[in-house]
Amino acid sequence: MNKPGSTEKTKLNRISHKASDSISDLHSVLDDNLVAHVGIIFDGAPLVIPMAYGRIDNRLYLHGSSGSRLMRALTENPQVCVSITELNGIKVARSTFHTGMHYRSAVIFGRAELVSDADKNAAMDAISDSMIPGRMSEVRAHTKKELAATLIIWVDLNETSVKISNNPVADDEDDLGKGVWAGILPIITSIGTPIPADAEAASLPLPPSIVNFRTGSSDTR
Amino acid sequence: MNKPGSTEKTKLNRISHKASDSISDLHSVLDDNLVAHVGIIFDGAPLVIPMAYGRIDNRLYLHGSSGSRLMRALTENPQVCVSITELNGIKVARSTFHTGMHYRSAVIFGRAELVSDADKNAAMDAISDSMIPGRMSEVRAHTKKELAATLIIWVDLNETSVKISNNPVADDEDDLGKGVWAGILPIITSIGTPIPADAEAASLPLPPSIVNFRTGSSDTR
Repeated sequence: MNKPGSTEKTKLNRISHKASDSISDLHSVLDDNLVAHVGIIFDGAPLVIPMAYGRIDNRLYLHGSSGSRLMRALTENPQVCVSITELNGIKVARSTFHTGMHYRSAVIFGRAELVSDADKNAAMDAISDSMIPGRMSEVRAHTKKELAATLIIWVDLNETSVKISNNPVADDEDDLGKGVWAGILPIITSIGTPIPADAEAASLPLPPSIVNFRTGSSDTR
Repeated sequence: MNKPGSTEKTKLNRISHKASDSISDLHSVLDDNLVAHVGIIFDGAPLVIPMAYGRIDNRLYLHGSSGSRLMRALTENPQVCVSITELNGIKVARSTFHTGMHYRSAVIFGRAELVSDADKNAAMDAISDSMIPGRMSEVRAHTKKELAATLIIWVDLNETSVKISNNPVADDEDDLGKGVWAGILPIITSIGTPIPADAEAASLPLPPSIVNFRTGSSDTR
């Protein structure tokens, strides 16, 4: 049985032991990472651009300058593929053939939908709080000028492919017992000590959103 | 003046203070990272897949299973866009509008060229050593079966866009002096303690390739 969002397209290259049909895995990959690689067709050729994103319920949100060609292109040709990858380790085998990565990844297929002017303010709040939870309550509201300068699109999460690769090293029998090391090199991502922007910031305690963000970062942010 | 590989396409969304025309910056972004997001057009829609890669001189190499639909699709429609992003920090401003990321990114436009059977063995060696320098001298050679099961493509690095964002927080004047913290949250990526695959590996010293990889990792791997 497939999850509701599973289609022929999401099965591309699927290897069964790596694929996850769990919605919570999808949300976890999205919520634990910060950069999406957004692919569109631009002038007949593929274009892949890194962007910050936010998730709200069953939607992925991307925002950019209203002057951005990518955002404009998306409003004209809404087909989009968004790929989010979290690299967790290198699986070093006794042959290069079995060497690979430990990762979690989500690939989202969909159509970019433009957020209307009426909904933009709320979407901006939500995107910000999706990236750094609680930050919106610490900063001023968006200005009309800022909202006018921003385009926001969303893609629903109905057609997705999630893969989790965390298998142990699997070497060929013939390669064992010959004195070659194999193992996992963990890749650890962490948030370092915050660097205040200026004297005013240096004089202030870290706000709760930043304290919580660092605490929650563990090894997946 | 543009670098030789600069074209109209590479100027997409360029903001002058972030763009780099330096070949050494391009090579540094490629050599210091491990995952590329590879965008192609598949059945008329964009498809973005994360892949390991290697760089040899002026070429980016990608390898995959000869059964992979992505690799097959690339041999049929060779237009490709490869995006490699290194996230180095979050720039937390006093408004969400000026909040953003510190990163280095490379976007490569080109045509996928298939490595011939005659050149495959050397390319496999080079890709492996590009990922973990020196590893090939520690493991056995590729078998004929492994080579047959692998497709390798390369893309030249003649049309690229490199961006480096490491600017300090730039808040609006009106947002200063109101008791709101701002600053940089560094994102630190490091290689943890290697985990031996089995008793044999645990009994062996770490090989030079792994020792060097960890030493060289600093905060950019």
